[in-house]
Amino acid sequence: MLDKVLKIGLLYDFYGALLTDKQQRCMEMHYLHDLSLGEIADEFKVSRQAVNDILRRGEQVLEEIESKLRLVDRYNLEQQTINKVYDIVTGLPANLRQSPEVTEVIELLKQLINREEEV
Amino acid sequence: MLDKVLKIGLLYDFYGALLTDKQQRCMEMHYLHDLSLGEIADEFKVSRQAVNDILRRGEQVLEEIESKLRLVDRYNLEQQTINKVYDIVTGLPANLRQSPEVTEVIELLKQLINREEEV
Repeated sequence: MLDKVLKIGLLYDFYGALLTDKQQRCMEMHYLHDLSLGEIADEFKVSRQAVNDILRRGEQVLEEIESKLRLVDRYNLEQQTINKVYDIVTGLPANLRQSPEVTEVIELLKQLINREEEV
Repeated sequence: MLDKVLKIGLLYDFYGALLTDKQQRCMEMHYLHDLSLGEIADEFKVSRQAVNDILRRGEQVLEEIESKLRLVDRYNLEQQTINKVYDIVTGLPANLRQSPEVTEVIELLKQLINREEEV
């Protein structure tokens, strides 16, 4: 379940803006603000089933876009490479790691790695 | 003109798969294989103006997607950061730069930088 939420969260981060307003609002209420289907149904004055349909449809659209563009996939591969660089650099002996150059490199790599947290 | 071609090339690299088949074929013939509007018109048995319309519409769709998703923008910013890391690392004194760790870091950074060339 957590895996699914993380996966949808990343797909939504990349492609959410291509969904309809209603899909976006439902997905944010459910996945970001953790509201139940029943609570969202009350808010929109529709049935629980209707909310479920909107969410499933939104997820399906996000999956379809990813299957065509593969940008999340590409991003994950890049992140693996950046993490590998980060591990090597932070594993350098302390005298090197604390040099101004390597300290700056570590800061820049942190910016590249923590993108999800900005969302 | 070159700037425009590079920009459209990058947008196409990211979002081209969301265009119609005809838009994709026209854009590849024109921007990738450097065919003129007249040559593409002959191939499709349509007017030069029709080809022009397909190309403009394709470009417009790509721009609209980028204005919503900003993934090319994000990619360009990340590339700037990766290039900065690369410049610092390759500017380290030779004895450090040639260590196995830093050599591996440089190879990994090159993979991250040269993505456009894969397309």
